[in-house]
Amino acid sequence: MGSSLVATFSWAEQPDVAPSPNGITIPQNYKDWRLIAVSQRPETGTLRAILGNDAAMAAARAGNINPWPDGAVLAKLVVKQKNHPRYPTAMVPGEFVHAEFMIKDSAKFASTGGWGFARWLGEKQEPYGKDASFVQECVGCHITVQKNDWVFTGPINIP
Amino acid sequence: MGSSLVATFSWAEQPDVAPSPNGITIPQNYKDWRLIAVSQRPETGTLRAILGNDAAMAAARAGNINPWPDGAVLAKLVVKQKNHPRYPTAMVPGEFVHAEFMIKDSAKFASTGGWGFARWLGEKQEPYGKDASFVQECVGCHITVQKNDWVFTGPINIP
Ligand code: HEC
Ligand code: HEC
Repeated sequence: MGSSLVATFSWAEQPDVAPSPNGITIPQNYKDWRLIAVSQRPETGTLRAILGNDAAMAAARAGNINPWPDGAVLAKLVVKQKNHPRYPTAMVPGEFVHAEFMIKDSAKFASTGGWGFARWLGEKQEPYGKDASFVQECVGCHITVQKNDWVFTGPINIP
Repeated sequence: MGSSLVATFSWAEQPDVAPSPNGITIPQNYKDWRLIAVSQRPETGTLRAILGNDAAMAAARAGNINPWPDGAVLAKLVVKQKNHPRYPTAMVPGEFVHAEFMIKDSAKFASTGGWGFARWLGEKQEPYGKDASFVQECVGCHITVQKNDWVFTGPINIP
């Protein structure tokens, strides 16, 4: 065992996580979902991974994403970026910021484009939003891509 | 079907891909591997996802990564970044640049820290390197993190 540049850790079992104020419960096993895309925000200094559940991956790979089918769930994992200690021009993950989700159910979430929105903050997974009205914040931004079924991300065409 | 901000596509079956000049063949199904980390390089304008096969994920989640066990394979997928057309401060994936791999086999790759290195360029997946000596380029950089078992990336502790 040499000394490590990065902290090692044990990944805990997913603990009991309180539901979002709009009643959505956190999807299980989302850290095992597959890759749809990556993104970065210079203005907030964050890196993101966008993952999809099996229904979302099947839709992405079939090009069947406008609209995405019911059952598709998109996860966005956001981390702070930091300079790699040994390779400072590389921006690498720092602190975990939040996990957020868009859950497609066109009947249940008809009033918000067919998507249920929810976010949990930090490693403690605290539900975001004082009450269910937090969804207006998500909607206010995502409605700008209504023609793209409310989704910003285009899947990476991984060969 | 509304008009789409992003091109849709069908994901083809993985075609026959020529081996790397050092004899390494491209790992199968790597686009289905799970997320270890994301990174970004401002100086090259690229976004990256680091994925792991099942052996790598088990090691990452157990904190058993110095050294990584034999059988672990790390993939790095690199894409050009571009400004999102509707949300220009967000840097999102553009053209696919390359997929590269580190394959842990401490006996077979003893001369390069126990890791086999290989890269395939672009969506056409052309093997990188005129001959097997390309590996010296990988080694020259990764040896700077020898104390971290030649690996730069620290896994994201996804809650
Ligand atoms: C100020 C704008 C803005 C707000 C507010 C916002 N988003 Fe987003 N969201 C984006 C952008 C831009 C992307 C894609 C690029 C990125 O992630 O950097 C995105 C991506 C996502 C994705 C991945 C799928 C996609 O559309 O690309 C999810 C899931 C998501 N947001 C959930 C939420 C939730 C939940 C909320 C509210 C709690 C929310 N967003 C609020 C701008 C916003
Ligand atoms: C000039 C420096 C440099 C060279 C040359 C280089 N790498 Fe890396 N590599 C990095 C850095 C820095 C990271 C982590 C951050 C990132 O990806 O931006 C990395 C990450 C990786 C990863 C993910 C695991 C890890 O160590 O974090 C793989 C796989 C990889 N490189 C393969 C290769 C292969 C194959 C070659 C040669 C064909 C190569 N690299 C050459 C600097 C380099």
